[in-house]
Amino acid sequence: MSISTPINEQISDFNNWVADLQTRMESVLDAQLPATTISPMRLHEAMRYAALGGGKRVRALLAYAAGEFCGADLGKIDVPAAAVELIHAFSLVHDDMPCMDDDDLRRGKPTTHKVYGDAMALLVGDALQSLAFQLISQDKLLKSATQKLQMLHILALASGSRGMAGGQAIDIESIGIPLTREELEQMHIHKTGALIRAAALLGAYSADEPDQEKVTAIDHFAKSIGLAFQVVDDILDAEADTHTLGKTAGKDAKNNKSTYVTILGLSAAKQLANELHANAMAALSFYGREADCLRHLANFITQRSF
Amino acid sequence: MSISTPINEQISDFNNWVADLQTRMESVLDAQLPATTISPMRLHEAMRYAALGGGKRVRALLAYAAGEFCGADLGKIDVPAAAVELIHAFSLVHDDMPCMDDDDLRRGKPTTHKVYGDAMALLVGDALQSLAFQLISQDKLLKSATQKLQMLHILALASGSRGMAGGQAIDIESIGIPLTREELEQMHIHKTGALIRAAALLGAYSADEPDQEKVTAIDHFAKSIGLAFQVVDDILDAEADTHTLGKTAGKDAKNNKSTYVTILGLSAAKQLANELHANAMAALSFYGREADCLRHLANFITQRSF
Repeated sequence: MSISTPINEQISDFNNWVADLQTRMESVLDAQLPATTISPMRLHEAMRYAALGGGKRVRALLAYAAGEFCGADLGKIDVPAAAVELIHAFSLVHDDMPCMDDDDLRRGKPTTHKVYGDAMALLVGDALQSLAFQLISQDKLLKSATQKLQMLHILALASGSRGMAGGQAIDIESIGIPLTREELEQMHIHKTGALIRAAALLGAYSADEPDQEKVTAIDHFAKSIGLAFQVVDDILDAEADTHTLGKTAGKDAKNNKSTYVTILGLSAAKQLANELHANAMAALSFYGREADCLRHLANFITQRSF
Repeated sequence: MSISTPINEQISDFNNWVADLQTRMESVLDAQLPATTISPMRLHEAMRYAALGGGKRVRALLAYAAGEFCGADLGKIDVPAAAVELIHAFSLVHDDMPCMDDDDLRRGKPTTHKVYGDAMALLVGDALQSLAFQLISQDKLLKSATQKLQMLHILALASGSRGMAGGQAIDIESIGIPLTREELEQMHIHKTGALIRAAALLGAYSADEPDQEKVTAIDHFAKSIGLAFQVVDDILDAEADTHTLGKTAGKDAKNNKSTYVTILGLSAAKQLANELHANAMAALSFYGREADCLRHLANFITQRSF
């Protein structure tokens, strides 16, 4: 399924779409990250280590799918999608540090602080965050200052204390404290949901004048799929082994963290993932084939390994 | 010296200007930082702890002085100046952490990680950075999207790997390695100079259509004064005791770090500070009393304690 032809429903075509855009995102990030020949070289090397060569690029895929749905040129989605991936990469680097989750493995390779040391990892995260905002602010393909400003605002809100950082704060405060399902949901809406929503909205706003009903539909879709993503993460953490996951498995239980699996049990957690998937689909119910890519992506996210 | 009346040269008036704007900046930050009644409360409390109640607010003062020089309304400078102060506060929180400088004292009180723990301090820094970009992107007083976008671009560049974070990376890589004067200068141009320049430029661009010659003059002024600021910092670290400094003194020597004092000696370092001060003044030589506030600020920065 090429980007310029109508989306068809064949899974193999969707898989090609995913593979093509994962490759594309890698190229965009490679081009936008500072070269290792530019000073400070070791910081730039570590930033590239943290941001390149791995991950499913779910947020970028969501931005591309939402952008296409709203009629954006593929090229205009590149930088906003890359910015979201940089924010995500920064959060992983900091999240893996000894004072946070203390993880040794990420995307199947040693975490940034294991390779470059804690101090450099701290700066890598800081600099990746700045770079995300820098890239959108200087993007030449997005012509309208208002459009870029709106994206920067969405991204800053999603990253900050009322978004991702806030969710992480709730997370570290809740270690060892059993959460209710509602509290757990609040944590995840911030910790992962906010950035996933931002990815979808930045994709939508890559179109010059996106249809507001489509933007609303995408927002509802992204809310459900963002939560589904986390429920699936909890299931995978409980079920998978470290090799399959590409990061240390079983950490949640070891750290005495509340998860959808510890609160609901494995079977009900899977049921919840399916319900959230259905909600996401319902948000697109007024749309035809132009939303198929988003639908496939919902399947991709919720059916990753079970 | 009130803001709306002509600047006069009396030091006491300048001191009042400084005190008024330090108070004003505290109020702006207080209003713009999320309230502790909003979830996640402890993160918000820690962000306020890190960003409020201390510091000379040199960057904000520079933004105000540069903005006035270019004819900006005082109110329009508030948010850009606050954004720069938030980036500065974020950098201090991360810089003080055990994996970086491992400092217990900052602005005369325990550092953020000593009070809230390392994980929370990490998130405080991350969230303060996001907030800086958020505030400019949503500011209602700056009417032009292009103006805000330009500010966001300047601030992101100054914070990232080619600015502040890059300078910190050079710093941690150079511990125990004697630097040449040129290498030291390169480090400081990035580590502190970039954000000080950004403060001045954001102030200038708070004016709706700043005179480009004035912007250029301010940029030259800020480059010299930014470096002077660091030379003075090195002198203070070598000379002052912990009580006077409000942070742990003598750390540079203890950490075997190259400073202007270790490279040049105390006397030549003071001479250099004076030369940089003279360069800053020279950048304003075409201007009359409208630049007096910037001149006073140059004195304030370079003559802090010697």
